[in-house]
Amino acid sequence: MKNSVYKKRRADFATWMAREGIAVAVFEDNEHRRDPSIQYFTGHPCDAILFLSITGYGILCAWDENLASKEADADIILPYTRFSLNPILAGKYVAEKAGVPVHSKIEIPENTAYPQFLEYVDAFSDFDVVCRKSGADTEVSSMRMIKDESEIALTRQACAIADGIAVSIEKKIRSGHLKTETDVALFIEKESRLAGAEGTSFSTLAAGPSRSHMIHSYPPFGAGDFGVKGLSILDFGIKYKGYTSDMTLTFASGELDPAQERMISLVEKAYGEALEIYKPGVSVREAALKADGVFSKGKKKMPHGLGHGIGLAVHEAPFVRSRDTGEEPQVFQPGMIVTLEPGLYDARHGGVRLENDVLITEGGNEVLTHSKIVRL
Amino acid sequence: MKNSVYKKRRADFATWMAREGIAVAVFEDNEHRRDPSIQYFTGHPCDAILFLSITGYGILCAWDENLASKEADADIILPYTRFSLNPILAGKYVAEKAGVPVHSKIEIPENTAYPQFLEYVDAFSDFDVVCRKSGADTEVSSMRMIKDESEIALTRQACAIADGIAVSIEKKIRSGHLKTETDVALFIEKESRLAGAEGTSFSTLAAGPSRSHMIHSYPPFGAGDFGVKGLSILDFGIKYKGYTSDMTLTFASGELDPAQERMISLVEKAYGEALEIYKPGVSVREAALKADGVFSKGKKKMPHGLGHGIGLAVHEAPFVRSRDTGEEPQVFQPGMIVTLEPGLYDARHGGVRLENDVLITEGGNEVLTHSKIVRL
Repeated sequence: MKNSVYKKRRADFATWMAREGIAVAVFEDNEHRRDPSIQYFTGHPCDAILFLSITGYGILCAWDENLASKEADADIILPYTRFSLNPILAGKYVAEKAGVPVHSKIEIPENTAYPQFLEYVDAFSDFDVVCRKSGADTEVSSMRMIKDESEIALTRQACAIADGIAVSIEKKIRSGHLKTETDVALFIEKESRLAGAEGTSFSTLAAGPSRSHMIHSYPPFGAGDFGVKGLSILDFGIKYKGYTSDMTLTFASGELDPAQERMISLVEKAYGEALEIYKPGVSVREAALKADGVFSKGKKKMPHGLGHGIGLAVHEAPFVRSRDTGEEPQVFQPGMIVTLEPGLYDARHGGVRLENDVLITEGGNEVLTHSKIVRL
Repeated sequence: MKNSVYKKRRADFATWMAREGIAVAVFEDNEHRRDPSIQYFTGHPCDAILFLSITGYGILCAWDENLASKEADADIILPYTRFSLNPILAGKYVAEKAGVPVHSKIEIPENTAYPQFLEYVDAFSDFDVVCRKSGADTEVSSMRMIKDESEIALTRQACAIADGIAVSIEKKIRSGHLKTETDVALFIEKESRLAGAEGTSFSTLAAGPSRSHMIHSYPPFGAGDFGVKGLSILDFGIKYKGYTSDMTLTFASGELDPAQERMISLVEKAYGEALEIYKPGVSVREAALKADGVFSKGKKKMPHGLGHGIGLAVHEAPFVRSRDTGEEPQVFQPGMIVTLEPGLYDARHGGVRLENDVLITEGGNEVLTHSKIVRL
């Protein structure tokens, strides 16, 4: 992506900082707490701390300096090891070098642990340390929720690669070349890289009939049979230049019993009815309630949300769910890319899930992936 | 594992709770914040909240009820969806049902975000909400650091599977059957499952000569050549019944330049000298300082720690590093299983890392894996 994209994002965010009177905003990504916002603002993929100043200046401390010099766009890049990977030591250096005026507001990540928050407050006693919900992280999440043209193009590519792989998988299951969960999952790993993707964006969930009743099968895939008599679920995502797809197919093999057929038809009905209202101006929760309604009429209950945004993270805003979280209601907007994934699970009959990625457009929506219930 | 193991662990922890006057301790595992302690106490692998009472009673709220009924040992199992996956709603229900006396101490995870901590305090205004460093999480981490017999046996199995795969990989690289990073990584995925493991415990890092200068290659593996002229790094872990191995081999192919040979000999020297002091009673930091000394004499610097504990998590206590964190110094103890992984990285010459898993025994140590610098 062009470096100017990152600079523009940092400048846009600085406008928000100015409105909020935040002098420095801190973002951190480490193995315990991933935050793709650093990639969003600099292109640097992981393991770093980023300081954004109200002037739009970006200072990146990266664990791997070699990687940063290749991938990152930032005004200053420092090796994070220089601060022993300690965010507070790095922060103190930056505050001093950048001449941040005392009593200024420094906003740290919303998910900063309480004991660490206390350490920040101690270390920055001359500043006002802010750690809150609905602050900087929420603002970045809102920015990331609406994809720009370059992001839509990359997501289309991730979806196209995934679609191609799904078509091959169906063929190879029919021809007997993919027989087990592992066969299917590793085929995806290989093909995705051959297609120029980074790989998968989460561990592929491939669950044959004996395991498809689990929402997220554990382990994600095993040595068991896939696509044999009954219901098998395949849920996978491809990561292309940072951006992800996410799709789920159900393979229904052999003659199904009436309970299984009923699950399939309810899932397809919920999918169809919800898709009709994946469009600008409709509340996201309304779509989730629509699907819930279909299931409750059928005396069933879906144990998870109906969908979620995708982008640099495989789960990001907006979250399409029916429970009222008390937060401001979200409305579908052009530029959002959101999954639609109704599912039903039964310990005896197995599971059915159907998931596609939906781009919200000015006129309605465009479905970017082409998952389906495959009859074998 | 026998259910009695879990009950014993919960009882042991309850003794600590009694000493600390904690009525209820809360553990949570979700996709943003993994905590294998729930698996340690109940066998349940993921996505749940666990309440342990001072009486040794365990109440598990699992997102996937089907999975819990198969895998978990707990006194009560509830579906987490009943509380909309909200830890505070689940906690209020448990506090009421279990008749926790008001003004009791309820300890929540150390990594609870500050804004969520405030919500807990609001919701449990009749109780004393504790969120601290060196509290419950540290105690569990200490318990987990010393492996019992069943854990050592499972880790041995994970290591044996990994060793077997490493031997096959060396053969298949020599015979030309594994040519690319993807070939090697997917071979591990397949073989690990065929051997009865859950799979890999982290994304395999397979970096050919053009990428081995990165500490953790990004993406972890790609379509590039592996094992061709120069230095290639392979870092992978096998997960067997929850327990992990972690090993790194370096493949040195063709004639190396003097700088590369020098990196290899320094890494081997640091490995050998540090291994001699991986034994009971020696401070963990001393081992890290020993390796640092070898490198600094060679005018080099290692940009990461020397090792870490392995178990239900691939990175857990003790952490073998030379920087003084101000925490109580850790000493090697029998029953610890710790990696030893010196490495050097150079943007021009590539990287070298050698990593094995070391069980600390009464008499010294036993190396459980057999990684080496492979000359091709």
